[in-house]
Amino acid sequence: MKPTGNVRPLAKPVTLSIDAMGGDHAPAMVVEGLNLALDGVNNVQFLLFGREGELEPLLAQYPRLREVAEIRNADGVVSSSERPSTALRAAGDSSMRRAIDAVAAGEADGVVSAGNTGALMAMAKFVMKTLPGVDRPAIATVFPTIRGRSVMLDLGANVECTAENLVQFAVMGEVFARKVLGLEQPSVALLNVGEEHLKGNQAVKKAAEVLQHSDLAIRFHGFVEGTDIGAGTVDVIVTDGFTGNIALKTAEGTSRLLTHFLREALASGGWRTRLGALLARPALREMRRRVDPRNYDGAMFLGLNGICVKSHGGTDALGFSNAIRVAVRLIADRVNQGIKDDFLYLAGQSPRDPRIATG
Amino acid sequence: MKPTGNVRPLAKPVTLSIDAMGGDHAPAMVVEGLNLALDGVNNVQFLLFGREGELEPLLAQYPRLREVAEIRNADGVVSSSERPSTALRAAGDSSMRRAIDAVAAGEADGVVSAGNTGALMAMAKFVMKTLPGVDRPAIATVFPTIRGRSVMLDLGANVECTAENLVQFAVMGEVFARKVLGLEQPSVALLNVGEEHLKGNQAVKKAAEVLQHSDLAIRFHGFVEGTDIGAGTVDVIVTDGFTGNIALKTAEGTSRLLTHFLREALASGGWRTRLGALLARPALREMRRRVDPRNYDGAMFLGLNGICVKSHGGTDALGFSNAIRVAVRLIADRVNQGIKDDFLYLAGQSPRDPRIATG
Repeated sequence: MKPTGNVRPLAKPVTLSIDAMGGDHAPAMVVEGLNLALDGVNNVQFLLFGREGELEPLLAQYPRLREVAEIRNADGVVSSSERPSTALRAAGDSSMRRAIDAVAAGEADGVVSAGNTGALMAMAKFVMKTLPGVDRPAIATVFPTIRGRSVMLDLGANVECTAENLVQFAVMGEVFARKVLGLEQPSVALLNVGEEHLKGNQAVKKAAEVLQHSDLAIRFHGFVEGTDIGAGTVDVIVTDGFTGNIALKTAEGTSRLLTHFLREALASGGWRTRLGALLARPALREMRRRVDPRNYDGAMFLGLNGICVKSHGGTDALGFSNAIRVAVRLIADRVNQGIKDDFLYLAGQSPRDPRIATG
Repeated sequence: MKPTGNVRPLAKPVTLSIDAMGGDHAPAMVVEGLNLALDGVNNVQFLLFGREGELEPLLAQYPRLREVAEIRNADGVVSSSERPSTALRAAGDSSMRRAIDAVAAGEADGVVSAGNTGALMAMAKFVMKTLPGVDRPAIATVFPTIRGRSVMLDLGANVECTAENLVQFAVMGEVFARKVLGLEQPSVALLNVGEEHLKGNQAVKKAAEVLQHSDLAIRFHGFVEGTDIGAGTVDVIVTDGFTGNIALKTAEGTSRLLTHFLREALASGGWRTRLGALLARPALREMRRRVDPRNYDGAMFLGLNGICVKSHGGTDALGFSNAIRVAVRLIADRVNQGIKDDFLYLAGQSPRDPRIATG
């Protein structure tokens, strides 16, 4: 399977550093994914960090990829069960750390990893630092809705959040949606257990009050509920990392459940049903494609002084290739610069509202 | 549409008190729902609380229902936006309050309402009181999974929870699953952002430690993630009311999203696809039925000294009829007595482990 969409011509060459050993099926999945990604972008180069002895024969299978990829040997691998703090202390020579270091050193424009999320965040934060005005980076992703596509954050970087954190996530998410979804004025809402202003925990109630009365120039919708995620009621859904992670994974699990029920229903029917399923097969495949989590792989760490994209730990080559395309787009669209400009303006360190320029 | 399943013969007659004015489409939806429910249960009687002038003509349409229903006039209606505390103070003559009072007075075996969740919980707690040993009641429901059916709680009664609350939910949820799903030893897990024991917020980490090392005789699985909800990895999923409410509603929204994508894919295809959809229609309908939230309507307030079942605020007659059937089953199976026995045993006030008798 190939990523959908046309090849995107990049004005300037983009270099990505790749944690080639991160992910359950790395490094084979990573190399295959990079090769797939080449169908979607041109003018891109890869620095692969990992065990040279393993990577070299894999790369040899893809001559087109081999031409734009450079291997940098790194023997260490951060395991998926490793504590972020341990990984941070120990992992000077891990593929993950070296890949991040390459961005800080200016050798690459961004890093992509399917490895341990907590370790990746800890290292990226330590090496790249956060943007001025950002207390805590957040993980954001794009997901499919009935209306089109929306953005949700945080997806797990911060399991406990204050109102202040949520407000910052709203600012970062809004810029992200403007740049990535191409919206002039994305609507932003806080995820809650009801739409009434009396509902919810202390953090969301206070964050709503701040967003309601601030001069942030954010189109704040108020609260939305879990059903609004799939409905696409708003463009940006803001929540703490605990709830966001569980909501996103619940949606993933529910997609799988429905696909399972559909398959069962079609298989258990008589000849009419089976003939029907055969005739409708392309349509059914199209439906599955639209909710396939692999087509939405690639979550961005927002608020860092650099581009860091996380691919799903259990991803395959198709999912990883999408994460690569996300990273390329973020770099080409200068998303991080947009967030930086916004925070400088909000902190009163820049007189120019960046929204006016883009809007 | 009729509820699925056979008529259940009840050994003893069951009387339910009904908040006939609760829910977006009340009272017409309530009366129609009660009539539908009669297809599924026998030996049941209803006390309908609400405006007699509105209820009488509705009931007149259903002679079979009319025979087993008694109207008790109540002029007040608790609105869906009312603050629970306000409703509790003001609502002595509301249909909701009167319906709950009927259970406390021994006139009914349980109450069913599709009205304001917070007000219903506040009133039920005030009137019925909690079971000995229970600090906070929780809302539990049954939902469909790839493996069959599972139970989740809390779904919104407690937006902020301590580890102690979560442990109590685990105990109540386990009894609920034994009785309602008919399992000898249901597996129980805490919902978290990862399976590793290092992950999560303080409450889930501490609750896991207590459940791991306690002599509660609960088959504790550890942590599960959002994807495990649809997968049915465990029989009982325990979480705080904020996360649980959002997870359940996210699953609902995702079901709707997939059904929407399926409909779009089938409608936009050519004649082959449309013929296929026509032939497979019964199977597609069966799939939709399996995930239709109306077929899982009826959440129980666990931990109260009485049976209180909440139907979805936006429900229709089919959903409400299912909530009625849930209430009847809970009463017939003496679920509350089971929870009470368990808590007495756990509190050292009863020498007999009720699990041994049931197991």
